[in-house]
Amino acid sequence: MNGLSAFVPALASTAELIASDLARVDERFRAQLETPIRPVAELVAHVERYRGKMLRPTLLLLTSRAADPALEDPTDEQVTAAAVVEMIHMATLVHDDVLDEAEIRRGGDTVNKQRGNEAAVVLGDYLISKSFHLCSTLDDQTVALRVGEVTSQVCEGEMLQLSRRGDLTLGEPLYFEIIRRKTACLIALACELGARLAHGDEHIIDAARSYGERIGIAFQIQDDLLDLVGDEAVVGKSLGKDLEKSKLTLPLIHHLAALDSAARDSLARRIRDGAIINGQRLALAQAMERTGSIAYARAAAHDLIAEAKRDLAAFPDSPARHALDSIADAVISRAF
Amino acid sequence: MNGLSAFVPALASTAELIASDLARVDERFRAQLETPIRPVAELVAHVERYRGKMLRPTLLLLTSRAADPALEDPTDEQVTAAAVVEMIHMATLVHDDVLDEAEIRRGGDTVNKQRGNEAAVVLGDYLISKSFHLCSTLDDQTVALRVGEVTSQVCEGEMLQLSRRGDLTLGEPLYFEIIRRKTACLIALACELGARLAHGDEHIIDAARSYGERIGIAFQIQDDLLDLVGDEAVVGKSLGKDLEKSKLTLPLIHHLAALDSAARDSLARRIRDGAIINGQRLALAQAMERTGSIAYARAAAHDLIAEAKRDLAAFPDSPARHALDSIADAVISRAF
Repeated sequence: MNGLSAFVPALASTAELIASDLARVDERFRAQLETPIRPVAELVAHVERYRGKMLRPTLLLLTSRAADPALEDPTDEQVTAAAVVEMIHMATLVHDDVLDEAEIRRGGDTVNKQRGNEAAVVLGDYLISKSFHLCSTLDDQTVALRVGEVTSQVCEGEMLQLSRRGDLTLGEPLYFEIIRRKTACLIALACELGARLAHGDEHIIDAARSYGERIGIAFQIQDDLLDLVGDEAVVGKSLGKDLEKSKLTLPLIHHLAALDSAARDSLARRIRDGAIINGQRLALAQAMERTGSIAYARAAAHDLIAEAKRDLAAFPDSPARHALDSIADAVISRAF
Repeated sequence: MNGLSAFVPALASTAELIASDLARVDERFRAQLETPIRPVAELVAHVERYRGKMLRPTLLLLTSRAADPALEDPTDEQVTAAAVVEMIHMATLVHDDVLDEAEIRRGGDTVNKQRGNEAAVVLGDYLISKSFHLCSTLDDQTVALRVGEVTSQVCEGEMLQLSRRGDLTLGEPLYFEIIRRKTACLIALACELGARLAHGDEHIIDAARSYGERIGIAFQIQDDLLDLVGDEAVVGKSLGKDLEKSKLTLPLIHHLAALDSAARDSLARRIRDGAIINGQRLALAQAMERTGSIAYARAAAHDLIAEAKRDLAAFPDSPARHALDSIADAVISRAF
């Protein structure tokens, strides 16, 4: 089971709640990528390595259930939309690993490492095309429209981030703008679509989107923290990449601001030169403990999760709403 | 005017026929990419450098007119679909240049050369997302479905080609399979959508698609020839890339088969080692003249154009049909 119980063991009961729903999503996902063309099938097989928590399909299915607690089984449209958001997420991972020159993902070689950047670029394009095709099969055209809008926002986030690589004057507002687009808006879309496809009213759809956006931002802050203080063997991907790529993250922004100007200039120079490689990452993390920067980022993520949980008050009480509540907690308690 | 008259001067009257239509396409294209986010706008501005003949929108608008000669002005849906196919084409160019490590496109630096592979990957993704979003705004959902199918086929063509790079035993059937997917199917889609959005019957839609596929394959063969015998200053992009990337093309497949086994092995080894750089490209082209391989590829393209022109018999006589006939000729007479 590559679902929620792998994410956080305490979520086992949530996982049970939607295990058979996720199996249907998985089937739809695989069917959409099935092909008799061998070189295509071989590349697509690499995507299996990227599959993991199925967080986005899980959120979509749970918000559907939370918006419509009488729902017995997910509708075909909900299952399809869940496969769509998962496939878009896979596409962003494959291309992100090209951008980040990452070599490890979920404990195995990345596509770019194993098959080259060219194959990874085309595979990502294929996943995007296939996901758009899949969502065009839905009767409700709003889904395709929103998917197109959100994937554009994801790209805008990436472009904003690229334009600021190595810019160590990046402040919090732009940092949040970047991660809202780059990470949070696809998670928000999953929740929004779940509520929408369960025929929730606008109030419920807005609450679902807001919940998703907040846990999405918190998710990214947790990723930032893991990139600094995580254990590569546990996280299962290359760490220290933000530093290597001179990408400012929330704890780093706080830390740079807390240093005196000589120390700030010196650290900024080392980051810009890509001089902080993986071996020195933990020493930096210790310095960031001393300036309170790790605690600051943790607190920011914690506050977002508290607000996300308040968003859930819009939903009637149900096992699915409880599950969404537990997922919010798990986003910041995870070590991988 | 970056339209047809630049493509082939003899097409000036065709260009005049749809000049104002293309201006509307251009406006829709720009409006869809307008953004207040500066780093995004800066990257998007690079796309202008890739804009050229507007062949695909031109074909879409002309097949609409040919399928419905009473049409005064293109409908909003036709204009939107034309902007969609142009945007998808731009996306494939931006990513192709990453795959090919190309440095020149339309006489200027490529995005990857000027802004790095990372920016080019994200810009291509953005164009794909924006084009899918644009086609989701159309009432006729068939357009989005067909666009998703065809962009997937384009990626399949790229993956097939990548899997055979350096394989100098590639034969004609697989070569044609690759270029049908990689190049021809988007041109075929433009023609198909033009006929479809003019409410042509299935017979007309099929004829339009067939015409587009045939000129698309001929277009790629002409590209193969230009890559070997073209003048970089006239073509306006890096040439000799097929050889550098060990990509077999129709004239090369014929030439290798025409050599005795010792000469074949020696040439194959030089191609595989990437030893034939731009300076030696013309010497190879001369050898290919002697084996009749250049003439063979020209004849293949010529036959396809003749068949494409026969497809046009399905349409009533009209200025637009004449224009499509002239474009077919121009595809193989162009020197760029």
